[in-house]
Amino acid sequence: MEGDLAHIGAGLAAIGSGAAAIGVGNVAGNFLAGALRNPSAAGAQTATLFIGIAFAEALGIFAFLVSLLLMFAV
Amino acid sequence: MEGDLAHIGAGLAAIGSGAAAIGVGNVAGNFLAGALRNPSAAGAQTATLFIGIAFAEALGIFAFLVSLLLMFAV
Amino acid sequence: MEGDLAHIGAGLAAIGSGAAAIGVGNVAGNFLAGALRNPSAAGAQTATLFIGIAFAEALGIFAFLVSLLLMFAV
Amino acid sequence: MEGDLAHIGAGLAAIGSGAAAIGVGNVAGNFLAGALRNPSAAGAQTATLFIGIAFAEALGIFAFLVSLLLMFAV
Amino acid sequence: MEGDLAHIGAGLAAIGSGAAAIGVGNVAGNFLAGALRNPSAAGAQTATLFIGIAFAEALGIFAFLVSLLLMFAV
Repeated sequence: MEGDLAHIGAGLAAIGSGAAAIGVGNVAGNFLAGALRNPSAAGAQTATLFIGIAFAEALGIFAFLVSLLLMFAV
Repeated sequence: MEGDLAHIGAGLAAIGSGAAAIGVGNVAGNFLAGALRNPSAAGAQTATLFIGIAFAEALGIFAFLVSLLLMFAV
Repeated sequence: MEGDLAHIGAGLAAIGSGAAAIGVGNVAGNFLAGALRNPSAAGAQTATLFIGIAFAEALGIFAFLVSLLLMFAV
Repeated sequence: MEGDLAHIGAGLAAIGSGAAAIGVGNVAGNFLAGALRNPSAAGAQTATLFIGIAFAEALGIFAFLVSLLLMFAV
Repeated sequence: MEGDLAHIGAGLAAIGSGAAAIGVGNVAGNFLAGALRNPSAAGAQTATLFIGIAFAEALGIFAFLVSLLLMFAV
């Protein structure tokens, strides 16, 4: 058995990256459901869509960052 | 087999960071669903949107903080 | 292989911190969905919103506290 | 490798503490959704809200208690 | 017992890749539900559909990238 325990940690962190996609999908999915019911209001909420995606995506990118740090920096 | 057990802990903590994105997505998704149904009320609830995102995001950033502490401070 | 087993425990506890964000997101998301359907009643339920967030957030902060205790106090 | 296996158990118990927050969020979220649809009935259900939160919160606090016992009493 | 610990990490990272598919499915599923209710508005939201899929897919591809790095580059 060889290898570095940090590589197991990097794999675990990548699960967090994938889990954040559920949150991003929730934001974009609800926007699409609402925009197709009331298309005239969709333009005014585009800013909120990107704010919501950004906050959820940030947490996933933090997890990806931990994964990269564990593979190459620690 | 080499490496530090704290690196496995850092990877586990990053899963928590990703899981918090599901909560953030829930807040932003429900705001978008409601704002597209009743756009005239969206402005008055923007403050609540950011309060909800902040409380959910804080728990994800706590998990990311644990991850950083385990990699660099412990 | 080096390191302290408590560091694996700290990482596991941080998953609990992130999972609590799903509960916080559920409270805030349902408040926003309801407040945008019936904005005139939103003011009267703001206290309930913060009570719900506080109880869910408390459990996430307990998990974060366990994480800090495992890293620095045990 | 040093440390006590009980510290891994304490971390696992903290996941249970966070998972209980999902239940608390479910109770408070559904109360808010209903109270904003029918505000005049919300006052009569406040007692039920706190009963529901208390039962869900209790299970999370039991998990937090297990975590504390594993760290300091066992 | 032989083998490299990085291979366990690569398998764990692939879980993250799969979890991201839940988010992507949420986006595309909500688009289809809305587009079939109101087909005339579907064309205007196609751009939002691809934006939502791209953000969720990116997090899954990050997890796949971690998996490939753990197998071939680390």
